[in-house]
Amino acid sequence: MPEQTLYSHVVIHGVGLIGGSIAAAVRERFEDCRVTGIGRNPQRLQAAVDAGLLHDHADCIDNIMIADDAVVVICLPVDYIAEAVNRVIAATTDGVLVTDAGSVKQAIQTQLSDESRQRFVGAHPIAGSEKTGFEHASADLYLNRPCIVTKSDAGNDLENRCCRFWSDLGATVSTMTAQQHDQILARTSHLPHLLAAVGALCTSGETLPFASTGFRDTTRVAAGDPSLWQQILHNNPNEVVAAITEAQEALNRLRSAVERNDRNATEQLLQEAAERRRSLSAD
Amino acid sequence: MPEQTLYSHVVIHGVGLIGGSIAAAVRERFEDCRVTGIGRNPQRLQAAVDAGLLHDHADCIDNIMIADDAVVVICLPVDYIAEAVNRVIAATTDGVLVTDAGSVKQAIQTQLSDESRQRFVGAHPIAGSEKTGFEHASADLYLNRPCIVTKSDAGNDLENRCCRFWSDLGATVSTMTAQQHDQILARTSHLPHLLAAVGALCTSGETLPFASTGFRDTTRVAAGDPSLWQQILHNNPNEVVAAITEAQEALNRLRSAVERNDRNATEQLLQEAAERRRSLSAD
Repeated sequence: MPEQTLYSHVVIHGVGLIGGSIAAAVRERFEDCRVTGIGRNPQRLQAAVDAGLLHDHADCIDNIMIADDAVVVICLPVDYIAEAVNRVIAATTDGVLVTDAGSVKQAIQTQLSDESRQRFVGAHPIAGSEKTGFEHASADLYLNRPCIVTKSDAGNDLENRCCRFWSDLGATVSTMTAQQHDQILARTSHLPHLLAAVGALCTSGETLPFASTGFRDTTRVAAGDPSLWQQILHNNPNEVVAAITEAQEALNRLRSAVERNDRNATEQLLQEAAERRRSLSAD
Repeated sequence: MPEQTLYSHVVIHGVGLIGGSIAAAVRERFEDCRVTGIGRNPQRLQAAVDAGLLHDHADCIDNIMIADDAVVVICLPVDYIAEAVNRVIAATTDGVLVTDAGSVKQAIQTQLSDESRQRFVGAHPIAGSEKTGFEHASADLYLNRPCIVTKSDAGNDLENRCCRFWSDLGATVSTMTAQQHDQILARTSHLPHLLAAVGALCTSGETLPFASTGFRDTTRVAAGDPSLWQQILHNNPNEVVAAITEAQEALNRLRSAVERNDRNATEQLLQEAAERRRSLSAD
């Protein structure tokens, strides 16, 4: 049975797959909570209202009444998050929690205003899809998925409220620094995206009809939005390049083993990789 | 309703996921066909009989009565296929079709006896899983999946029978040379496996709890059997190294674009990759 009192107002700035899924989860879990969408395209936002994701919408934070204890979640592409945070912080009172869902964390922190630095709590729910648009939103997108909340100057109260918010949407919350986040995600998300793109780039119209299910899995995320991913990679360049360096070294070791016909070396590397992969929980 | 007369006897040498799925498909589609398993482990083969996949089993081709029009499918790891083909060809009459399910084709052809060269028709059903063992066998594993039948010196009659056999199991059959097969599979299967392994190798126990669904997809095949994959890679070394070279070039281009902060270059490469991936039929 949905709880009724925890949240009175959730504002989602950017209602795509990520923002739409937050809306869906809030609507399902907190029936009395008002959910407002902010975005540039009123037709799309009205469609999200019609789809039952939002109660109302506006084009700008200044054009809505925001509850004193509201949660505002910025779900924009990473290039636009800091600017939106600064605008929302300037337009709201201290009781309003402002968080985000961006895939990088350090680059956003460096662009925050002094005021934002005192109130913003960054978050990254690690869930998504190569699909885009609120039409693919799911109330269960964050269920049992990791969500990283980054340490900030906002203080414990806001940090705890942020952790609580994401865990109330079903996520398993961890806290760490923005730097730790960016190091980890470079290896678990940004590099895998590049490897998937590389796999897709090495095929052609002639080879694709013979793609295996393995190829489909390995390259699936490469179908994701190139503009969103370019922004993610270029907002985490140092860690991404460090991860690419590691990948190049691993690929060189495998290549060399095949060239030298050193079957033991190949099998040992594949064994290590298999153990690493199998240590993930079942999927 | 199953057809009754097309096949009287199918012999499967190596009853794992691949061989077991052939058995399951034959049992489902051709009720009157006898299905015999050959392998080293009688307990495992008896378990496959008990599971309804096989009618009977033996440890060696010499120890079974083989119908004059039988189909023998060698489903062993690629290192062992040519030797098994030579043994089966020597032990059977001209009417018996001998084929395989190996992931490489040229290396097998070069190890065939003169007699085998006149009768063996290589095949590669492009379907599988990171899982192993007949317990994961499925009668639908080959349904609507590509199967490549390689051109041989066996002549049109045997080649046509081989194509017919795999299409009767539900596969979409194409014919090409062993060289073409190995070039294509290096890019659609062998390289993707290496990229998945590289992705897994660049993670650690600390980063894995934050793995995204994208990471899971991208690295899934890396959990596959290291010994089987070592054999595949080392039986197609030239094409595998050529594919790695292409991958290294693509990865270098992406790295350089991130290092130079050339967002257009990154986005263009990701766009190419996305278009390539999206051109695959839905999955």
